[in-house]
Amino acid sequence: MHDSPITVLAGGVGGARFLQGVVEVVPAADVVVVGNVGDDVEPHGLHVSPDLDTVLYTLTGWIDEDKGWGVRGDSDRALEQARTLGADAWFWLGDLDIGLHLARTEALRRGEPLSAVTARLAQRLGLDLTLLPATDDRLRTIIGTAQGEIDFQTYYVRRGHADVVTSIRFDGAETARPAPGVTEALRDARAIVIAPSNPLISISPILAVPAIREQLAARTAICVAVSPIVAGRALRGPAAAMLESLGHEASPAGVAAIYQGLADVLVLDEQDAELAARVEQLGMRAVVVDTIMRDAAARERLARAALDAAGIAA
Amino acid sequence: MHDSPITVLAGGVGGARFLQGVVEVVPAADVVVVGNVGDDVEPHGLHVSPDLDTVLYTLTGWIDEDKGWGVRGDSDRALEQARTLGADAWFWLGDLDIGLHLARTEALRRGEPLSAVTARLAQRLGLDLTLLPATDDRLRTIIGTAQGEIDFQTYYVRRGHADVVTSIRFDGAETARPAPGVTEALRDARAIVIAPSNPLISISPILAVPAIREQLAARTAICVAVSPIVAGRALRGPAAAMLESLGHEASPAGVAAIYQGLADVLVLDEQDAELAARVEQLGMRAVVVDTIMRDAAARERLARAALDAAGIAA
Repeated sequence: MHDSPITVLAGGVGGARFLQGVVEVVPAADVVVVGNVGDDVEPHGLHVSPDLDTVLYTLTGWIDEDKGWGVRGDSDRALEQARTLGADAWFWLGDLDIGLHLARTEALRRGEPLSAVTARLAQRLGLDLTLLPATDDRLRTIIGTAQGEIDFQTYYVRRGHADVVTSIRFDGAETARPAPGVTEALRDARAIVIAPSNPLISISPILAVPAIREQLAARTAICVAVSPIVAGRALRGPAAAMLESLGHEASPAGVAAIYQGLADVLVLDEQDAELAARVEQLGMRAVVVDTIMRDAAARERLARAALDAAGIAA
Repeated sequence: MHDSPITVLAGGVGGARFLQGVVEVVPAADVVVVGNVGDDVEPHGLHVSPDLDTVLYTLTGWIDEDKGWGVRGDSDRALEQARTLGADAWFWLGDLDIGLHLARTEALRRGEPLSAVTARLAQRLGLDLTLLPATDDRLRTIIGTAQGEIDFQTYYVRRGHADVVTSIRFDGAETARPAPGVTEALRDARAIVIAPSNPLISISPILAVPAIREQLAARTAICVAVSPIVAGRALRGPAAAMLESLGHEASPAGVAAIYQGLADVLVLDEQDAELAARVEQLGMRAVVVDTIMRDAAARERLARAALDAAGIAA
C-alpha cells in the first residue's frame, strides 16, 4: 500500500467502472479501494462479496460487461445441477465464480479475516491496487419494504429491486470496526474519492462503520464525490427511486446533501449543470463534466476530472 | 417406503455396487438403505456426504466407475479456479458434484434435516429405493494415528489412508438418534443385509448410533452380512490394514467377530472357504460364494446369494 494513497470508496458496478478509469490516470499501486460489504450474502453456504468481486472481475477484465457482474462466458454447470436437484437457486453463480467463493469461504472458515482473503484474491488475480473491505466484521444492509424487512440480495436480486424501499439499515454497523488499513488509508490519503456508486446502498454501508465515518469527517485530504445520478436517473440500478422513496432528491443536489460534511467537491454531469449552484450552497465545490462512463475513454476522462478536482496532477 | 422392506446397511463404493445388484434381484421400491454419514465433510462450507452420494451416483449410473466416486466426465472448473486463487482444495469436487452439494447445503442451512434433503435428491435423481442417512444428527468418524486424531477425510483423502490407524471413534454418536424411518426399517424388515463395506469405517459408524445397534440386536428379521475381505485383502481401500492395526483379523472370521450378535449369516468368498467353520463357531451360518463384484452380473449374483441366504425368494 502506498504510504499516501489515493483512497476510493466504492461499491457496485459504477464504482468498479470508475476504478478502471482511475488506474489509467494514476499508478494502480497508489490506489486503495475501500469496498462495500453490506451486500455480502451466503447462498448455499458460500460467502459471496458481490461488490468486492465486481471490483476484482472488472479490474482483471474478466467481468461480464453486459451484466456488470460475473465472469464473461462463465458456465453454470453447478448451478443448473443444483436447480435440477430442487435447489431454490435464485442467486446466479457461475462455475468460475463458485471457484472464487470456494476459496474465500474456505479461508473465512479457517478464521482468516475477509480483508486478508480479499488481499490474496487480488494478488492472485494480478491486481496492483489495494482492495480493502470496509470491515472484517459482519455488516449487512437490510431493506425495509411494505412487506417488512428483507436482506439486501433478496431485495435486489430475488425480487428484482421492484419493492418501494421504506427504510435502510446496516445490521452490525454499530459495532463494526474498520478492516486493517482502512483508517490509515483515509487518514494518510493524498486524496479521497467517493465513486459514482449508489450513495444509500453502496457508500452508506461503508460510512455506517462509526470509525470510518469519523475518520472521513476528520479528513485532512480533500474528498471528491462523483454523483451517480444524472438527469434524475441512475444509469444502473434503483438509486433514483430509492432516493425519492426515502425523502431525498434524486439529483446531484440530493447526493450532495447526503455527503454534506464528508465531501468537499461534487462532480456532476453536464445535464445537471443548473444544479451546480445548489450543490455549492451545501458547502461543496461543484465540478460539471460529462460523467457518463460509456466506454473506457469516458471512464478515464471521468476519473481524471475527479482526480483533477482533488488536486492530483496526472 | 415398503412396509416390510429389505433393509441394507451400506457405506462406500462396495456398498453402492452391491446395491446395484440388489435392485436387479428385488424391486427397488422394496429396498431401504441405511447409509453411513461418518465420512461427511464440509470442504469450503459445502456439506458433502460422500457415502450417500456414492449410492446416489452409482444407482443413477452417473458414477465414475474407475474412481468409484464423483460423476463420470464431470468438469472441475470451479475447483481449478479455487486452486488458482490459492485455496487448499485437497477434496476433489466436480462442477456437477458441487451442484448437488449446493442443493444439499442450502437445504441444511434452511433447517431441513439431512434425511429430508437426501430423500429429495434421490427422488429428483429418479431412484426408486429409499436412502436414509443413519442419523440426522452430527456424527463424525475420527481416526487416531501416531500423530494424533484427524477427521476421516483428512485421513482418507488428504493423507491417502497411509497412516497406521491406532483408534477409531465416532464423534457425536452417543447422543445421535436414528433418522426418521431407520428404526422402522430395521424393526419391520423382511430381511436385513450388511453390505460388503468396510466394517470399521462404513458400517460401525451406523451401528454407533445406540438406538440403531439396539434395534439390530433385537431384530426379528434375519440379518445377512457380506464380507468385504477376500483372501486377507480388501478389494478397495484400507480395510485389511485397518483391521490388523486395530487387533482384528483381516479375514471373514475377523469380520464375523465384529458382527457377532448382529448378523445371523456371513457371506464369504470361495477363496476363504476354509474359514467357514470358524465363522460358524461364532454362531453365524457361513455361505460361501464368489463375492468379487467384477461386473454387473457378478454384483447381481452376489446380491442374489445374500438375499437367498436371507430367505428372500426372487
